Amino acid sequence: MLGARCLLRALRSCSSAPCPRHKPSAKLSVRDALGAQNTSGERVKVQGWIRSVRSQKEVLFLHINDGSSLESLQVVADSSFDSKELAFGSSVEVQGQLVKSPSKRQNVELKAEKIEVVGNCDAKAFPFKYKERHPLEYLRQYPHLRCRTNVLGSILRVRSEATAAIHSFFKDSGFVHIHTPIITSNDCEGAGELFRVEPSSKVKVPEENFFNVPAFLTVSGQLHLEVMSGAFTQVFTFGPTFRAENSQSRRHLAEFYMVEAEISFVESLQDLMQVMERLFKTATMLVLSNCPEDIELCHRFIAPGQKIRTYAKKQLFNWGVDLHTEHEKFLVKHCGNIPVFVVNYPLALKPFYMRDNEDGPQHTVAAVDLLVPGVGELFGGSLREERYHFLEQRLARSGLTEAYQWYLDLRRFGSVPHGGFGMGFERYLQCILGIDNIKDVIPFPRFTHSCLL
Amino acid sequence: MLGARCLLRALRSCSSAPCPRHKPSAKLSVRDALGAQNTSGERVKVQGWIRSVRSQKEVLFLHINDGSSLESLQVVADSSFDSKELAFGSSVEVQGQLVKSPSKRQNVELKAEKIEVVGNCDAKAFPFKYKERHPLEYLRQYPHLRCRTNVLGSILRVRSEATAAIHSFFKDSGFVHIHTPIITSNDCEGAGELFRVEPSSKVKVPEENFFNVPAFLTVSGQLHLEVMSGAFTQVFTFGPTFRAENSQSRRHLAEFYMVEAEISFVESLQDLMQVMERLFKTATMLVLSNCPEDIELCHRFIAPGQKIRTYAKKQLFNWGVDLHTEHEKFLVKHCGNIPVFVVNYPLALKPFYMRDNEDGPQHTVAAVDLLVPGVGELFGGSLREERYHFLEQRLARSGLTEAYQWYLDLRRFGSVPHGGFGMGFERYLQCILGIDNIKDVIPFPRFTHSCLL
Repeated sequence: MLGARCLLRALRSCSSAPCPRHKPSAKLSVRDALGAQNTSGERVKVQGWIRSVRSQKEVLFLHINDGSSLESLQVVADSSFDSKELAFGSSVEVQGQLVKSPSKRQNVELKAEKIEVVGNCDAKAFPFKYKERHPLEYLRQYPHLRCRTNVLGSILRVRSEATAAIHSFFKDSGFVHIHTPIITSNDCEGAGELFRVEPSSKVKVPEENFFNVPAFLTVSGQLHLEVMSGAFTQVFTFGPTFRAENSQSRRHLAEFYMVEAEISFVESLQDLMQVMERLFKTATMLVLSNCPEDIELCHRFIAPGQKIRTYAKKQLFNWGVDLHTEHEKFLVKHCGNIPVFVVNYPLALKPFYMRDNEDGPQHTVAAVDLLVPGVGELFGGSLREERYHFLEQRLARSGLTEAYQWYLDLRRFGSVPHGGFGMGFERYLQCILGIDNIKDVIPFPRFTHSCLL
Repeated sequence: MLGARCLLRALRSCSSAPCPRHKPSAKLSVRDALGAQNTSGERVKVQGWIRSVRSQKEVLFLHINDGSSLESLQVVADSSFDSKELAFGSSVEVQGQLVKSPSKRQNVELKAEKIEVVGNCDAKAFPFKYKERHPLEYLRQYPHLRCRTNVLGSILRVRSEATAAIHSFFKDSGFVHIHTPIITSNDCEGAGELFRVEPSSKVKVPEENFFNVPAFLTVSGQLHLEVMSGAFTQVFTFGPTFRAENSQSRRHLAEFYMVEAEISFVESLQDLMQVMERLFKTATMLVLSNCPEDIELCHRFIAPGQKIRTYAKKQLFNWGVDLHTEHEKFLVKHCGNIPVFVVNYPLALKPFYMRDNEDGPQHTVAAVDLLVPGVGELFGGSLREERYHFLEQRLARSGLTEAYQWYLDLRRFGSVPHGGFGMGFERYLQCILGIDNIKDVIPFPRFTHSCLL
């Protein structure tokens, strides 16, 4: 009995739920207010921050933003409401009637009946100035405030939408989501410099490792996903990964997000490339349709001319030397400045888990990278060596047999051909938004010499 | 032009997409095969691992599982297919006709025309024995293999569904998803022991901190969410958090997941409690409807009698001493073994950011915990101190003014009343599944003395 009452109570409108429209002063988000169909004087309450103030003789215009959309809601008030406190950056609660706007610039506006300043903004100290467009480099100095600008607001909304789109792509395709561990005792394939993890106080576990073994921050969830791909034929993870590289490049962070997938019973790289392509397109189409204004803002003001480019497949082969940034740039340009799949890399350059193509003197592994203009490597993937004896020999040659006994085990008990890929999430955002510096597409960037907040 | 062709190519069925049904040997997941409506001899291909083998004089029965559901698909084959390789744990590909099963135990079965063993299973070395139910403690020794058992399969599918349900709850409620940082220079409110992060090799950045300042693994995304709540009125994060506590308890991990939300313009704890309740109920109802068999398995075999309990609100007050596990247990029991909200804790016991209730000699802060039977604290939340001068004084008293200048800043520039909460994701899973030990609801548990793989 209690259950039903509780449920009713829970389903009742509360501050986070859109309130029924007929109630007086229903609380509305700016987005919902802007999209309201009923503009025949409905009484609503809107809360947010002042983005602009324009005071005329008899009328006061405010623009209120609450982060639910790029567009702000225009509030029209009698000039008697005017006050110094109604200033750029202040938070306000406005009650009034939602009416059709006489102006062409918006459909709807809020005729204020009551305006309450909730929190003042110390305009002199506030680092962002009214009506000024600050460069992204300048905004980066204020990680605790920059989300209050239009451009960071747009980027973070797109990031949120893209996150949801990626989760729904995998769910709709039947993948099982796995939280691969952040702290690991694997140092994986020595992919770059690792961060070591230790308790900050040594008091409780003196003279020994907290975990008994040295522990590191993960560089990839791949090997752990491979564990899971022995039980679920399609798995993915979407979480933070780390590199302790001393780089201040516009393409690298010490902490960044990777989307990784692993698929059992794949037969060829083609299978993987198709999933990579579907992921990219499905997520991008969703984001484009859910926040066109935010993307438009980035394209218009930050990367003029940047539009989502179509992409084709070209297969190129390369022997003996690994691809560096300059090679990647060359390849992409050579192919007409479109995204390019590069497949089959020399075995000698690649980690032990990639599947041997057994192709004679070239001796390649079944690896694939997707290079995109402006960003470089966006995806990296491979078939994994599922054959016990091949893997055993590769591990032995690298002196890793003991450390990877558990990984060999996966091939002793019902091994299957499998493969997977990883996509750098920040690079994906850079790619679709045309944002040059990776530090601008993550809420709190971490890199050498910088860990603000 | 390329765009359209690429799109078509991408939309073509590939290994991860359900293939059109009319093609010969369309690849089907076990789940899709079991749910197939068309059983008039459709030709399909199913891949997975053998869960059971039963050999009769003229017929061979196999059960194939691919992780897409708890239930396996029955394969019926002529006994001429029998072979030693068709054994528990082996991976197989079966082609044949999907037909209505004459048995009551399943609707559909697969009449095999071709069976290929893809990977053998070394039965002697395989730690799980055919038809045996191994205790969870035993399975924990094999983190790389335990996902191949029914019970871990079910738990991990539920975990995946719950993850998706939580994301969709917040998205549908208009929250913006934020990736709060994992590495942080805040040590937050000193919530337990921290892990320190340093590059494993000191070569590149010698004699100094990689980040210039000491860096730690996050214990909570709250303060970073509060940054965002100055621009977006509803934000959430769902990621890993860390405690370096020397605990082997069945309720603690060194690495665990938290769902955290922050809401601007809240007026009371009631607002927060309603969101907490809606989150719990919406996610749980989704999980219950999407994987009833998996939950049933846990309830039947692991926690007999455990069913989702309804919950009511009781408000209890407590002065002077913090609640310990025993108090929590007592409270929950006292209230009839149902989930209990505990509100308004003594200010002196709580961190600086919780909102002062200004309630005289009791002097409490607006904090709330949700305690649930068997698990203890599932949610913790509070209103935050949004008033500049109150916060300034609290920080000064704790000697934290300098370190939290940025946090004070949030109150200088359009501060709003706000609050939020965190939910321990593993505890949530323990709660709905009735799993006693937290190590069994996370794919790769990390705790003192243990960081396997």
